[in-house]
Amino acid sequence: MSAELLSAIVEVSVRFSETDPMGIVWHGNYVKYLEDGREAFGEKYGFNYMDVYQQGLYAPVVKMDFNFKKPLMYSEKAIVETTYIDSPAAKIQYTYKIFKKSNNELLTTASTTQVFVNDSGTLILTTPPSFMEWKKKWGIVS
Amino acid sequence: MSAELLSAIVEVSVRFSETDPMGIVWHGNYVKYLEDGREAFGEKYGFNYMDVYQQGLYAPVVKMDFNFKKPLMYSEKAIVETTYIDSPAAKIQYTYKIFKKSNNELLTTASTTQVFVNDSGTLILTTPPSFMEWKKKWGIVS
Amino acid sequence: MSAELLSAIVEVSVRFSETDPMGIVWHGNYVKYLEDGREAFGEKYGFNYMDVYQQGLYAPVVKMDFNFKKPLMYSEKAIVETTYIDSPAAKIQYTYKIFKKSNNELLTTASTTQVFVNDSGTLILTTPPSFMEWKKKWGIVS
Amino acid sequence: MSAELLSAIVEVSVRFSETDPMGIVWHGNYVKYLEDGREAFGEKYGFNYMDVYQQGLYAPVVKMDFNFKKPLMYSEKAIVETTYIDSPAAKIQYTYKIFKKSNNELLTTASTTQVFVNDSGTLILTTPPSFMEWKKKWGIVS
Repeated sequence: MSAELLSAIVEVSVRFSETDPMGIVWHGNYVKYLEDGREAFGEKYGFNYMDVYQQGLYAPVVKMDFNFKKPLMYSEKAIVETTYIDSPAAKIQYTYKIFKKSNNELLTTASTTQVFVNDSGTLILTTPPSFMEWKKKWGIVS
Repeated sequence: MSAELLSAIVEVSVRFSETDPMGIVWHGNYVKYLEDGREAFGEKYGFNYMDVYQQGLYAPVVKMDFNFKKPLMYSEKAIVETTYIDSPAAKIQYTYKIFKKSNNELLTTASTTQVFVNDSGTLILTTPPSFMEWKKKWGIVS
Repeated sequence: MSAELLSAIVEVSVRFSETDPMGIVWHGNYVKYLEDGREAFGEKYGFNYMDVYQQGLYAPVVKMDFNFKKPLMYSEKAIVETTYIDSPAAKIQYTYKIFKKSNNELLTTASTTQVFVNDSGTLILTTPPSFMEWKKKWGIVS
Repeated sequence: MSAELLSAIVEVSVRFSETDPMGIVWHGNYVKYLEDGREAFGEKYGFNYMDVYQQGLYAPVVKMDFNFKKPLMYSEKAIVETTYIDSPAAKIQYTYKIFKKSNNELLTTASTTQVFVNDSGTLILTTPPSFMEWKKKWGIVS
């Protein structure tokens, strides 16, 4: 029996300052929208980055990729859907779908991978205990 | 006989505002460094985005991916090496290597794909003539 | 008889990417919070920048100032209160108060002035008719 | 006899991502140009923010104001002139002039005030010794 995929959605408003001379959101600004997605995921599932920090750990993004299919314009709203993808390694992986709110059109897909480092920047190869407990709580590992 | 790879390098200074609470460059800011890389490439090889715009075309980024291996800190300098990867399709593709200036360590690799759209946003499926001429000039196509 | 001051409030969540190595919101990011404030004001009072654009006009910010009294940290929320300050000249002026949501503490005050330019960048010295009508509608001018 | 004003200049290239749908640099991005100005000032006069950090102090910006007279466009270059304005209080004050490189036109004036705080965020009311020495070295105080 496999666990359901954990997934959260959040609405994002396009800021004027996020658009470029083409009148569309500059592609680099989507990185912030993923951040909003992770934030919403964390709130929904009790996965708090501050908890991680308080253990002296950070979770830097080490990989990200984007496919931009359709643009998003000033004064439009987007929906970011963030889905947790489990890994046996000490990693946090998400995939993202960004939709235009007005018509549910899929605009962008993306994924990110985070690892754990301690405050001197050394990679942590074992899944931190608090993260393991979180996985158990949500039925991701048994 | 194949053409040499066209490649340009540019130095980038880390701004304080580009660093995050970990004291390292926030991963989303690397998107700007790629932009600096493309700009330097354009200057070296006479590939000017303004020319494209004056033909009523835009060249939005439709794909990008990053691998972050090592962090970059405030007050450090990076070298962005941008390499043009040819495609028979109507696309502009680059790969990037970002090095720490002080010790030439490879920090990040990335790639981007741009397509051509006209000012009403329609995808242009044929390589624009000016881009084709540019390819011929540099021996990329014959 | 003078009109009440028109004022709107909006909640802003601090993004991780908006904080700096001190762990607080980098001062330059407050410019975006003011933008959120103006956006909320526009929604509440039917003052839409897109309307202005459709008349071939832009409303660039020509003056801004900030007083930062207390910092805002990652994972905190702020309330931006945006108040319209009328001017007989062809200007849009706002003052802003930014509060910490959790305790209503006043963190930052700011003000901005916008003027009107046409699409060739020439300053418009007369208040645009649509803006004048908006002022009448809300009892700012008679 | 009064000291000459200490002043440094630095060139800034406009990034595509810094421009808005008007095709001009979005006003909030000038905050980064001031940062480049302070950085250049620090390099020229041996005023290093990292030194300050290593004493457990931070120098947050507590006031800033801008006057935007003329816009700056994509692919243009600007010159930022940063001038130190001394204060008997425990403050760092600068004024800035931003010029268009191609014709030396004055585009923007600005000023910032920084104070000193320790790492628990408490305001330091006495000028830190290292800053006082820096002032003496450059003939600002005797």
